Amino acid sequence: MTQNTNLLLQTRTQHFDSLLRLQFGAELDGFDLVYESYGSLNASASNAILICHALSANHHAAGYETAESTKPGWWDICIGPGKVIDTDKFFVVCANNLGGCHGSTGPKTKKPGVTKGCYGAEFPVVTVKDWVRSQNLLAQSLGISCWAAVIGGSLGGMQALQWAIEYPEKIRHACVIASASKLSAQNIAFNEIARQAILSDPDYLEGSYTEADLVPERGLRLARMLGHVTYQSDAGMREKFGRELKSGDIRQGQNVEFQVESYLRYQGSSFSKSFDANTYILMTRALDYFDPASEFDNDLVAALSGTHCNFFVTAFTSDWRFSPQRSKEIVDALVTAKKNVVSTLIETPLGHDAFLLPIKRYLETFGAYMRTIEI
Amino acid sequence: MTQNTNLLLQTRTQHFDSLLRLQFGAELDGFDLVYESYGSLNASASNAILICHALSANHHAAGYETAESTKPGWWDICIGPGKVIDTDKFFVVCANNLGGCHGSTGPKTKKPGVTKGCYGAEFPVVTVKDWVRSQNLLAQSLGISCWAAVIGGSLGGMQALQWAIEYPEKIRHACVIASASKLSAQNIAFNEIARQAILSDPDYLEGSYTEADLVPERGLRLARMLGHVTYQSDAGMREKFGRELKSGDIRQGQNVEFQVESYLRYQGSSFSKSFDANTYILMTRALDYFDPASEFDNDLVAALSGTHCNFFVTAFTSDWRFSPQRSKEIVDALVTAKKNVVSTLIETPLGHDAFLLPIKRYLETFGAYMRTIEI
Repeated sequence: MTQNTNLLLQTRTQHFDSLLRLQFGAELDGFDLVYESYGSLNASASNAILICHALSANHHAAGYETAESTKPGWWDICIGPGKVIDTDKFFVVCANNLGGCHGSTGPKTKKPGVTKGCYGAEFPVVTVKDWVRSQNLLAQSLGISCWAAVIGGSLGGMQALQWAIEYPEKIRHACVIASASKLSAQNIAFNEIARQAILSDPDYLEGSYTEADLVPERGLRLARMLGHVTYQSDAGMREKFGRELKSGDIRQGQNVEFQVESYLRYQGSSFSKSFDANTYILMTRALDYFDPASEFDNDLVAALSGTHCNFFVTAFTSDWRFSPQRSKEIVDALVTAKKNVVSTLIETPLGHDAFLLPIKRYLETFGAYMRTIEI
Repeated sequence: MTQNTNLLLQTRTQHFDSLLRLQFGAELDGFDLVYESYGSLNASASNAILICHALSANHHAAGYETAESTKPGWWDICIGPGKVIDTDKFFVVCANNLGGCHGSTGPKTKKPGVTKGCYGAEFPVVTVKDWVRSQNLLAQSLGISCWAAVIGGSLGGMQALQWAIEYPEKIRHACVIASASKLSAQNIAFNEIARQAILSDPDYLEGSYTEADLVPERGLRLARMLGHVTYQSDAGMREKFGRELKSGDIRQGQNVEFQVESYLRYQGSSFSKSFDANTYILMTRALDYFDPASEFDNDLVAALSGTHCNFFVTAFTSDWRFSPQRSKEIVDALVTAKKNVVSTLIETPLGHDAFLLPIKRYLETFGAYMRTIEI
């Protein structure tokens, strides 16, 4: 296997001893963040980039974790030598968010002060601001005083936006992709259905399923199926599946199964075996609560007026969960606040998932912006 | 109570002794259809209109069932004296579809040949064509040889379309509202998530929940919540709910609940107490399978070429489950087949649910068309 030879991938866990007071008042007495890095930090630490992950992802953003891995990280199309986020130039960091389920402190972590048992549903609510603050502690531990760029899609884009607001002196570029400055009622509604699917699964046991050696697989499966459909577009699904049948004959009505049905069930099923239900609930709550303008009398221009970085804002035409209109609201506010912003709109039928996919025009424009970043 | 005084409402159950062979081969040895009628059939039976209901509705389309009822039928805005479907002029019939759960033979009906127990999940698959054929038997029993019009929205519009194809001599006008000639992959996907929510509810018991005195309420609740969100538009939900909170303070993160969340839970909960899970599965399958062009080499023009009636096709701009593009496909095929068609597109943020709502321009144009129908 030679798949890893060009990418200097390292996985580490950073422990923080200090007390972390969360936005909503709860405290964590020490915590871990697991992160991957790609490339090398230069002597002046001026080439560091932070990648923020979205709802169902983790710190494994690029490359292959082991020589046996067959599936690369979730943003491997963008991160690597000579790629859009060029690891020959940049030192790239991606951490599993606090409350996650892939190594950072979260609901599956042993609860302090008890002999056995994990946090489960008692893990405190975490917000985008909490993630940004914990990522700032990680930056300090790595000797990075200012990120060349903070980059993310969807919920990750919200973190990039919050970085620009929270630490204006510690970020030179914010790349906000397929994101929004706040969710719409429809988005909150979809998140609520996903949460209810999990909460109403009898195996959820009010969040203490781990102690009972159970997994609320039914709920997670439904939540993922719903996400999967809404992250694609009607036109994109038509291209991919049409009304093709997997089995049966529709004229006889026996064992009829459309391709899209078995595909969805497969996706839901894999996810339910690899993701934690309490984390899913936490992440959707963080999405719902994000609204930086709410601290500025609901004025997004005011919220962004203290930022100093340059912005790159991208949206995709067929994305209806984080529609181009939401990106336009961010761009409009930045323009009004007289900030530097480059915005692009990518024509594609691939819906919200487009930000994860190798779309030529997207990679070209994103790459063009990244090449302007000086280190 | 004077609410019923102007509307001559009658509820009856018609029993059919004959054997009904269903499209997919199963047979029903006799069956019941429950129906409501409004207004009076004229001597020549030339003023009869059939209303076809959609996924979660039933035969109670207009008026109040009893003097104590506080909620009128589901299309009361359209049906009544002086209304769009004027019961002073027309005799209006609406039957609960076969497989339904409000009085017509369906999964909750006692299974023949056994001393106790209902059909449950063993009730055979029913299609739009089966509904149209059973409605034709109802027409015969009522002495109606030709409907002045067959009218329906959504799944009801599919029945109107099928009537035009199946019985070209027995229908003079077909009104196809917010409908489609077949579902898209995205629509099938949403239906599949709803089905999986029900099927994976432990109380579903493979469809035999009634014998165990259980109801798969969790699954039905999720199915309805999902329907409810997708039958509205992002813009419509923004107008209705915005990001308003029902409780809590988002800056403190305690007991935060958005209005849209409690609204959805309430809607889901009421529905789960009044609708049958096996019927819900049957109805969504009928939606998925509907594709009249499939019997004509996937040529919708050919499928419609044998029709003789006039068509009225209406869509709503913000309806993304049955988008204007789907209606346009029907209109285009009708035009190519040289049929008479009037089509309208109604500007509204109210999504798919718009067809049930009192939108001025919709009622005006629909009413204008209905006034052209001679009796």
